[in-house]
This record gives sequence, structure tokens and C-alpha cells, in this order.
Amino acid sequence: MKNLIPSNIEELKAYVPGKTIAEVQKEYNPERISKLASNENRLGRSPGIDKAVQQAMATVHDYPDPLSLKLRKELSKKHGLKPENFLFGAGSESLLAGLFRTFFLNKENVITSNSTFVGMYVQAKTRGVHVKKIPITKEYRFDVKAMVNAIDDLTKMIYIANPNNPTGTYITNQEFEWLMDNTPPNVLVVMDEAYYEYAYDVNDYPDVLSYNHENVVVLRTFSKGYGLAGFRVGYAIASQELIGYLHKTKLPFEPASLSQAAALAAYRDQEFLAKSKKIVSEGKEILYQFFDEMDIQYAHSIANFVLIDLKDEDKAIHITQRLLEKGVIVRRVNAFGLPTCVRVTIGLAEELEHFKTVFSEIY
Amino acid sequence: MKNLIPSNIEELKAYVPGKTIAEVQKEYNPERISKLASNENRLGRSPGIDKAVQQAMATVHDYPDPLSLKLRKELSKKHGLKPENFLFGAGSESLLAGLFRTFFLNKENVITSNSTFVGMYVQAKTRGVHVKKIPITKEYRFDVKAMVNAIDDLTKMIYIANPNNPTGTYITNQEFEWLMDNTPPNVLVVMDEAYYEYAYDVNDYPDVLSYNHENVVVLRTFSKGYGLAGFRVGYAIASQELIGYLHKTKLPFEPASLSQAAALAAYRDQEFLAKSKKIVSEGKEILYQFFDEMDIQYAHSIANFVLIDLKDEDKAIHITQRLLEKGVIVRRVNAFGLPTCVRVTIGLAEELEHFKTVFSEIY
Repeated sequence: MKNLIPSNIEELKAYVPGKTIAEVQKEYNPERISKLASNENRLGRSPGIDKAVQQAMATVHDYPDPLSLKLRKELSKKHGLKPENFLFGAGSESLLAGLFRTFFLNKENVITSNSTFVGMYVQAKTRGVHVKKIPITKEYRFDVKAMVNAIDDLTKMIYIANPNNPTGTYITNQEFEWLMDNTPPNVLVVMDEAYYEYAYDVNDYPDVLSYNHENVVVLRTFSKGYGLAGFRVGYAIASQELIGYLHKTKLPFEPASLSQAAALAAYRDQEFLAKSKKIVSEGKEILYQFFDEMDIQYAHSIANFVLIDLKDEDKAIHITQRLLEKGVIVRRVNAFGLPTCVRVTIGLAEELEHFKTVFSEIY
Repeated sequence: MKNLIPSNIEELKAYVPGKTIAEVQKEYNPERISKLASNENRLGRSPGIDKAVQQAMATVHDYPDPLSLKLRKELSKKHGLKPENFLFGAGSESLLAGLFRTFFLNKENVITSNSTFVGMYVQAKTRGVHVKKIPITKEYRFDVKAMVNAIDDLTKMIYIANPNNPTGTYITNQEFEWLMDNTPPNVLVVMDEAYYEYAYDVNDYPDVLSYNHENVVVLRTFSKGYGLAGFRVGYAIASQELIGYLHKTKLPFEPASLSQAAALAAYRDQEFLAKSKKIVSEGKEILYQFFDEMDIQYAHSIANFVLIDLKDEDKAIHITQRLLEKGVIVRRVNAFGLPTCVRVTIGLAEELEHFKTVFSEIY
């Protein structure tokens, strides 16, 4: 069969999931488990979604609404935009895949950093698109100027995760303005704002939508702030024209029915979101203080995780493994381009206590 | 933005959903509504899934199991295969999209009929793959010999929906054997068995998996027989090697968490499936008799729908619209290549009575 397979697919690596709670339990039987690996909302979910899910069960034998009408209506209203500026899919990764499906021929390239969301690299590779990976700065930040300098005739897209995963850093509104001033209008600028809910009230975080750029696509998700990772709901916000093209290539029936209902209920519970933000903000200070005491380098984050740099790949492997054996699941980010680093999700106070205790023991 | 868009995407038409029950209610306010347009299971869903969904809610803030371990374990056992022979996705359409993403370069082609599942045409077009559409026979059946004759050096895939949507017809085990004897081993043969649960006990329906062909991919879904259309769960069965490649390009976190739980519960309730099959089998006879009396041509179906041929496109448009106004939602299948035909899902007895009454009035 091997000669059936295009070389970009041959070279692609399958997603290797982290160990599940059940697997860690079985393998190491630790006293407790703290899942700090996937930047999920450790507070759980808004209680309001349970009722919404139950109600949606009544028609779950029918196909989902392919237009996500209720969600698009509600969110567009809140944003002062039209429903036609929104497209919903099965997580923002599905929309990202859609961007590559929709806009790329074969020899074009996308520009991003060498240390960002691995799913973006995978989707580009899947479509056979060349990725120009521009090194991040010493402060673990996107180097916007170097990225713009890398634009050539075949550049179709610039991808910026803002805040960036796995560094937690961000480009400021000044940087965004400079970027847009210096990027040709026929280059798509994709702003992946998966962690938007944790970031939007940071002073110089860019309010991208307020600029009304025709070539900007914003991606957001219900997986992080709203705690709906298991439901798979993400969305794109862009001009009606771009959304129209993305709509053409979208699988018609995503997100699933219960997922659409859950997202709507979650969006209406801003109290739960506020609570989640508070936990993250407090937990971040706890982690910063801890890493300062341990003299471990970290990046300042405006998301719900903190990246630490252990300056040595073997050390990163070793510590991640030892933490795992003691029930603390964190994420190595070698696939994200940072082999000496480890990403720690900001959990609840007791989870962070667990992390600190075990980390202190083994470090 | 227009020059951003590859021509295959420019030419692609966005999915146009049928009217929802709510829209029909609002627009025409009929006495009752019978949704016979999308081949969903009109009996609903297995009652067992409610509990499974409720249990899965406990961890829905976490990402879904990217490997669908429980589903793969359970189904592979039942089939006498390995978990590695299975891949789960968000509906079989997602797997179909994955086949195009994974195996195609640019100048290759796929062979199918001119009257089959529209989602297949869309996925091919999205990937810029040329589709050789071989006319179906006068009996609305795939012309297997003509399809094999159309194979050339650039043919990478043959796609057969079995039973076919929207005709309900099928290729027999003899035809399947002849097909495989005459297809080079480097051409993938995709057998889309979305309606398998309604078809497998038909005498000469091919038991495709029993042949162990290395180049065959079987697609199945929980949307039809099991009544889980809103959950989006489908799967591919193939050699470990082919599944491995498909796994690489799959979005990691599909199907959603509750969907995986629901599918497992549904699979364990074979009683519900038997009941659904009985309703379809009885309803089919009711429709056949009715169409015989009305002297309307139809195709014999081994799925949960019946295709009628009104021999005139205007008639098909007119009757579909009039049925809609009276609350009977059926599907025109012009996008499937059959502009003079209409597809009727086999509903519950009272829904079919509704259909017959209204159809008699307006025909």
C-alpha cells in the first residue's frame, strides 16, 4: 500500500495522546491524580448545561442544525456583527483544518512561529502546505517583524495563536496594528484566540475584531474558558465573504446537537466564566511564586497555563515522567517546538498544591 | 478576496439544509409534521443511551478519548478483528473526508456512479479530486462493469455506497467478488455501508469484511440504524496499515465525549435495532403497495428509504413543495444526480399514513 500514500502524509506523525486518568491510575496507582496536561477548565462546566443537554436529547436522533442558527444569532448579537460573520465547527481545530482545505493550492506557504500549537503544524502538513517557522524571541514571543519579513509571493496565510499555546505570551495591540499595516491584503491573518476568555481584559491585548480587517479570521473555542472540551465546539469570526468560503468546505453536520445546546447554555453563564478566570488568575500567582522560589524560568502567561523551561531535554522528559508516576499529569511540548519545556495547566488550589509538593520532591 | 480562492472551492456549492421542523411549522403551520427527508431513525433512539450520556457528563470538561478505545474494543471483538482495524470519527462523512485528505495528490481520480451520496461529491471536490461519474443502470443500480472499465493509471479509489443513497439498491456478493477480481490492488475500494444495519440480512448482500481484502475500506455509522444522527459517530474498518494512515490525518478529538458514550450504549441495545428494522421493513411494504396503486415508479430498497421517479423535474419540485406545505418533509435528490426523483424516508406507520394522504391529494 505504501506507494498509495502521498509523501506529506507518509511523513506526518499520528497524534499521540497523553495518558488518561484511568491509565495513570492503573499503571502507577498514585494517591491522587491532578490532570494539568491539556489546559482544560479544572473547575468543570457551567451547571446550566446539564438541563440544556437533557432538553436537546429529545431530538438527538435527527441531524444537528447544520447552520448552528441559535449560536450564531446569540453570539453575533453580542459582538454587534451578523450571523453570517460566524461559522461553528467541531472545535477550533476543525475550523483551522477548514482554512487549509479552503484556501490552499499546493505550493503556497503559511508563516507562523517555531513554537506554537502543534495542531496547526499537523493541519498544514496534512494539506501539504509548507510552513515557514520563524523562531520565537528570547521572551518566548512571536517575532512579528521577522514573520512579516518572511512574506513572499507564495505566502497565503499568517498564523498567530494569541495568546500563544504553549508559551502563554501574546502580541500586543501595537504589534497587531503594525502587522496589519505591513501585511498585504491578500494574505490571510489567522488569529487563533483559543484562550481569549482568559486574555481579553489584559490591557494591551488586541481587540482584533474592532479593526474590521477583511483579511483577518479569528478562531475561538468553548473548550477552554467555558469548560466544554468534550463537546467539540469552536467557531470562526470573519468577513461574510471568507465565512462563505469556509462554509462550503465544512462538514455539514458539526458541531453535534448536544454540543450546540451546551455551548449556548455555557455562553449564557458568564458567572461560571468569571469564577474560572478568578481561579486561573490566583493559580497563576501561586505558580509564579513557586517557580521563582525554585529558580525555574517561566514565561508570563495570559492563558490558563504556564510554560516552564528546564533548559535540558532529558530533564524535561525525566521530570514529566516522575510527575506522572506521582499522579501529576503535565505536558511536554516537544511537538510544539520546545523540547526543553513543560506546560502546566493552572488547576484548582488543591491540584497546584499537589503539583508543588511532588515537583519539590523530584526536582 | 476572490483571487485567494482555488477554483475547485470557488465552484463548490455550500450545503443547503432542508427546512427544519420549526421552520415548516412557522411558515406553513400544518396540522402535523412528518420528517421523512434525512433517513434518520423515526423510532428515535435506544433508551439506554440517556444514562450513558448522563454518566459521561461527569468528565465532559475534559477532551474526549482521541482513540475511542472503548468503542474500538467492543466493536472489534464483535467482528473478530483488532481495535487497530477501526477508526472512529464525527460521522462516516468525516471518515470519507479523511480518505480524500489522506490518499490523494492532485491529478488522481475517483470512480463512482452519477447518482450517489452527495457528500462524496463534495468531499472529492473540496480536495480537488476528479470524479468519474459512471451512469447507473436503468434499475438505478451501480454499473460495476462500467466502473471497472473506467479505471486508468490515475485512478486511486472506487466509491460504492452499498446500499446506495439515494436509490436504496445494492451490489450483490457476486458483483462485489467480480469487482475485486478485476480491480488492481493499488486502487482503494471504499464500501460506504451507512445503511448496513438495514441491509446485512439480505441474502446476496456482500459480507465485505469476510474477504479480508487489503485495499477495501468499509464505512459505517451510528446515524441511521442506531438513531444517533445528532451525535455524529461513524467509523472505518480496514487493514491496520490503511487505518494507520487515516489516523494520522484525523482531527484528534472526534467523536465528542457524549457521542462515544452514546454509541457504545446504542451498540449494546440490539433490541432497539431489531425494532427499528421491523418498522422499516413493514413501512417499506406499505410504500411499495401505495406506489404500485398510484402507478409511480420506485426502486426496490434495502435501506430505510424509498426512491420514487416522477420522470419530470418540475413535477418533482412541485410535489416536494406541496408536501412540505402540508407538513410532509421529503427530499429532492437533484444534488445526488437524480433531478426527477424524490427520496422518502420510511417513517412510523402514522407518518406514512400522513404521507400517503397528502400525496394522494396533490398527485
